[in-house]
Parts: sequence; C-alpha cells; structure tokens
Amino acid sequence: MAIETTTTINGSAVTHTPAPLDASKLVITLATELKPLPKPESLVFGVEQTDHMLVVHYDPIEGWSAPEIKPYGPLSLDPMSSCFQYCPNVFEGMKAYAGPSGEPRLFRPKDNMARLSRSVERVALPPFDMEQLLILIQRLIKIESRWIPDVPGHSLYIRPTVIGTRAALGVAASDSACIYVIMSPCGPYFRGVAKGISLLGVSESVRAWPGGTGGHKLGLNYAPGFLPQRVAAKQGYDQILWLLGDEDRVTEVGAMNFFMAVKADDGGVDLITPPLDGTILPGITRASTLTLARAHTSGQIVLPGLSGVKLHIHERALAMAEIAALSDAGRILEAFGVGTAVIVAPVGKIGWKGRDLQLPVHTGGLGPIGKGFWDMLTAVQTGRTEFEDWSVPCL
Amino acid sequence: MAIETTTTINGSAVTHTPAPLDASKLVITLATELKPLPKPESLVFGVEQTDHMLVVHYDPIEGWSAPEIKPYGPLSLDPMSSCFQYCPNVFEGMKAYAGPSGEPRLFRPKDNMARLSRSVERVALPPFDMEQLLILIQRLIKIESRWIPDVPGHSLYIRPTVIGTRAALGVAASDSACIYVIMSPCGPYFRGVAKGISLLGVSESVRAWPGGTGGHKLGLNYAPGFLPQRVAAKQGYDQILWLLGDEDRVTEVGAMNFFMAVKADDGGVDLITPPLDGTILPGITRASTLTLARAHTSGQIVLPGLSGVKLHIHERALAMAEIAALSDAGRILEAFGVGTAVIVAPVGKIGWKGRDLQLPVHTGGLGPIGKGFWDMLTAVQTGRTEFEDWSVPCL
Repeated sequence: MAIETTTTINGSAVTHTPAPLDASKLVITLATELKPLPKPESLVFGVEQTDHMLVVHYDPIEGWSAPEIKPYGPLSLDPMSSCFQYCPNVFEGMKAYAGPSGEPRLFRPKDNMARLSRSVERVALPPFDMEQLLILIQRLIKIESRWIPDVPGHSLYIRPTVIGTRAALGVAASDSACIYVIMSPCGPYFRGVAKGISLLGVSESVRAWPGGTGGHKLGLNYAPGFLPQRVAAKQGYDQILWLLGDEDRVTEVGAMNFFMAVKADDGGVDLITPPLDGTILPGITRASTLTLARAHTSGQIVLPGLSGVKLHIHERALAMAEIAALSDAGRILEAFGVGTAVIVAPVGKIGWKGRDLQLPVHTGGLGPIGKGFWDMLTAVQTGRTEFEDWSVPCL
Repeated sequence: MAIETTTTINGSAVTHTPAPLDASKLVITLATELKPLPKPESLVFGVEQTDHMLVVHYDPIEGWSAPEIKPYGPLSLDPMSSCFQYCPNVFEGMKAYAGPSGEPRLFRPKDNMARLSRSVERVALPPFDMEQLLILIQRLIKIESRWIPDVPGHSLYIRPTVIGTRAALGVAASDSACIYVIMSPCGPYFRGVAKGISLLGVSESVRAWPGGTGGHKLGLNYAPGFLPQRVAAKQGYDQILWLLGDEDRVTEVGAMNFFMAVKADDGGVDLITPPLDGTILPGITRASTLTLARAHTSGQIVLPGLSGVKLHIHERALAMAEIAALSDAGRILEAFGVGTAVIVAPVGKIGWKGRDLQLPVHTGGLGPIGKGFWDMLTAVQTGRTEFEDWSVPCL
C-alpha cells in the first residue's frame, strides 16, 4: 500500500510516500480510571461509551499516523473540516458477542471491512488497508471485553467511522481523514415489541434512488430520514417503510432490510426480500439470512423450529399493492426487518394510503420463520453453533 | 421563541424553558495577536481563515448558550456526535463586500437566513431566531472588516454552519446543535476561465431526486459528487453538469445554477433556466438574476451593455437533446452558471454522450448577457448601484 506520490508545494514538486495504515505502530494509552459498568437491563442503544477509542489520522503528505488506542474523549477539528461542511462520513455497525468460553467474537467482520472499503471509495476518502483496521478493532475489543454484557441478547456494539478532515471550503474530495472506532454495550434495539413494530409507508420523501448512494453505508443517507421519522412517530408508527417509484416498491425499513414470509402454493413458504439494486443497503444480516435460508433449503442445515418447512427464496421487487393484496388474501405469514443492531425484528403493522395492514401477531413477537433465523443467527454469533467461518474469535 | 417544554429525565417529567438564541448575550473575546493579511492575488477560495469565529451551542434543557465571538480555533466534539454519524449539517454561503465608503455590505442576507431556516427544518435540527443570527453575523463582519480585500471582484466569504451534536448512536433527530460562523477572504472562484469552464454531463450518478434533498442547502448533498467530479477532472472537465431522468434534464452545474441565452425568433434573447422543482438549489444569485432580467424586460432598469436587448425569461425543464439541437443550429449565444461563490461563470463546453458541445467563446470569458448580469450584480453588491433593498450595510 506504500505509494510514491508527487505533490506540488509552493510551486515545487515534492515526491513523498504517505505512510500506509500500520497496526504494528499502535500506541496504547490506558485510562487511569475505568467507568462502572451499566446494568444490562437499563441499556439504551448507542448511549453508553466504553473507556477507550481507536483514532488514526491521515494527511496527504505524511499518510496514516501511528494508530492510537486512548481514553474515550472529544475529537478536536477545524470548523472548515469537510466532515461538517460536505459530509464525506462513512461508518460500519458491528457487534462483539461473548463466546462459550467468554472470548469476544465478531460476526463476519471481513464483510464489514469490505463494505467500509466501498463506502470510503464512494465518497472519495483516502483508501487504507482494511485488514490492518480489523487487527486494530480486535485489539480494542480485547481491551474493552469487560463491556460485553454477560446476558443473552446483549453484545458490544462497534462503530468504526471514517470522516473527511480537509480544512478548506472549496467543494472537493477530502484529502485528509480520521478513522475512529468507538464502542457501546447494548441490549435489544427495540424493547417490548411483542406486537411487532409498526411501519408507515412513505413515498413523498425518498431515502435512496437509482444513481444515488442508498447502496453504501454513508452517514449522509440518514439525516434526510429524521423529519419523516418524526412525522411517522407523531402518527404512532415506530419506523418508516421507505417506498420508491410509481409502484411504491419497498426498499428499506428504517435502517433495516425488509423480509416477508408468504404461504406458497405448494404448502411451503415464499421468503421475499427486495434485490440489491443500488437503492438498498447490502446488509450483512440480510446476506446471512439469505445464505441460511438457502442452506436450509438445500438440506445443509435445519433452521431451528423449521424442520420440514420448505423455503422458496425470492430476491425481487416487492410493491405495496402486492403486499396489500397478499394481506387481504390472508397469505402473509410474517414480515420482519433484519440488521446488525436489531438482528431480526417483527413487523406488526404497515400503514399505507390511509389504511393499516395488520400482519399476523405471534407470541413473543417473532413468528416461527423470523425466530428460526434469530435463533440460528444468534447461535452462530455467540459461537454456540458453527457455520462457515462467520464467527471470528478475537484472540 | 421561548417555549415551555416537558422532558422526562430519570423517569420524572421536568418542565423547563430552553433559552432562545439571543444576540444581546454575545460575549466577545478578541485574539491577542492578529494574523497578517494574505495578498489578494494569491487567495484560493475557502482556504484562509479570519481571526475570529462565532459559536453558539444548543442543548434540549438549557437551550441556546450565550453566543461567543472568539479566536478562530478547533471545535471539540464527542465522537458519537450526529454531525459525524448521520450528517444533519447545513450551511449558507454569503459574502461581505466593501461599499463606497469602505463599509461592509451584505447581499440579500435575509434570503440566506430564510433558506437556512428551511434547511434546519429539513434535517430536524433545533430551530432558532434567524434575525438574531443575522445580528451576530453582522457583529462578526464588523470585527473582521479588515479582511475584506480592497480589490474589485474580491470579498469576504461567510459560512454560517449548523451541525447536529447529539452524542448517541440511535438513528434519530439531533436534539443538540452547534451554530458556527466562519469567514474567509476570497477572490474570483475560477481564475483564468477566459475560455469558459468545461462541463461533463453526468446521468449515471444522480445528485438529487424528486422527494430528495436537492432543494435544500445541506452538507450531505455534496460528498456524493466528489467521486464523479474526480472522474470528470481526469477527463479534463472543470465541473459536472448534473442530469436527471430519461431525458437528461439539466439540474445544477457543480454547485451553481445553470442559465442559457438563446437567439429568439423575434430577434431578442430567450433566457432559460431549470425550474425549482425540489431537485435544484433555490440559489439567491439565481433568484437575483431572474429578478434583474424581469426588471430589464419591464423597463425598470437597463442591464449594463444590454440596452435595447429584449430578454424572454423561461423557467422550464431543459433537456440535453434540446441543448445539443440548439447548439447544432448555432442558436446558443451563451451559457453560464450563477452562485454566491462564482457570481456568474461562463460555460465554454459541455461533454455529453461522447461528444463536446462547443459553446460561443467571448473575450474575457463572459458574453454580453452574462456580463450584463455580472456588472449589475456586483454594482448592487458593492453598493455602487441601488436595487430594491438587496445591499445591506453592516452598521
């Protein structure tokens, strides 16, 4: 990754080699006093911070600085910084789970790194070696492992972030950047959703569009949803179901991918999710759900509680009129959202064109299909069940 | 603006009155040492910072803090802050010009404040009294007035910014915020564009979309353009002409609004600009250009150098095929972009579908129509000519 570069400084061409991101240069400064651990049952998603964070800076001459793990604290940035002005800011959502021997485990972290790499490229931030970042994240997890709550359904949420730090107002790619990784202990994202979450279908406000950035995990995809989300909340809905085009095609649910299980003609189940057409985030939980469904279908595994249940997998466009027709015909078995933060969350109701589609309610929230995925995903995430190389212990 | 609010803190409802933004509470701390002024001819847009900045913080309990004018310096923010993670960041671009007696003058500042208010609302930031902000900006301009270069075509660029500072990772509107205003002396945005800037028409990457945020001045509208801009630069083009839809309709040029002057059948000039349909920023220079054109047409004013020239004004969709046909027929007189940073910038070439549309080149860059607007706009901006209440001295 060491690339010789020529930059013009005060009229003279200067050849230099910006340093690559190098985990072996890590400098660790531990906090002198550690915070008391919060009670797991009182955790609200993304509010508590662990004791430390990872920070690395990039400038176009020096390259990547020596990575630092240091006490959690504020970032100090020039007010002209691109991150405030033009928002070339990207992030990932990951979780560390406690394994059978208490060891911290990550779930498919290379997929997060690959997606982060695509995000960095999409907003023209300086590229870096994702393997080095993953090594650094694992070091930080080891240091913060006491923060993983020892309670089922709980984990340590990890937020790798890269922001543009070029301090100039001309509209141009940020030639400077900061990588930082922060962590927060978390319990269930939605508490008390036994009835399932309620969604309001919204098409006046559009989250993502063809040729836009909806297929990348960019910070800038989220703020435009705040106002519609507030309007939905005032009408009593938990989240927005983002619709697109004249046919009101389903794209995402709040910040989750959408799945629907429908009675198939052969007595099995049609599992339908919208395709990755660039308007939908390629979720790692989404990909895992599809892979597990295919493994179940092929007989490689049996999803918990779904022995003998035939799953037919469809990645295809799903219009609201079709959902309404299936609902009216009583054919919808379950709908759910999937994502790193929620894992699998049941959907109980969809508001669309002034009516509410009531979806089947199941004891405990999730129906048997959603629960099959939840049980399998959490078993793999916590290292109780092995599936491919998805669960990675931090050694 | 003082509104009693009830917030639940640790399970108890607390009634409180967040303080409104109040310019009379301003606290001024002047820099002990002032920077040397840069040479006007060496100024690059948005790189130099003046000595001071304005900063105000909002939290949902206390409300707006006492505004501070203090030495320019870094902002210190929690790494969880919404501005880094979800990008509810908005800004304005304004300029202070030296008037005939050396007094600093703003151009239609209330229009900037009105647009900022709409931006703040669009990303669900806490609202505030824009008149108070304008008073504060004027105070800062008075303090920094030595930074307005005493050279024609130069000014002090002003960047009011509002960012979300809620320090939590749950995806929700930011209940905390920071307003800051920074300033930078500037000369011509494009130097040496005697040939006019070259544009690459781009439709694979889409800047704005119906139901999106292109009609608001949000930081998040800009980062997605960095990569396409880099691709265009590699092909030798200065800026991107953002196209939309199957017809390749023109929306914006880089960060400017687009105008075209075409030979009309009656010997006059058709002045065409795309309409404000939500995919285009409602530029204040755009609105001013249209108002001046209408005033010229009605006989209220005569645009410099355009005596006897009939202007027919069209705010309507403009497809690339039409531009190409007009170009082939030799009917295009001029094309130009307008905006606060550039004022009026000539367009010399448009790349589209593998061909280059060469537009008429004029001595000095701008043609007579563009120059008529440039001359009139700069005369009003610098207080040499009065037009309505557009030029506002900072007293």
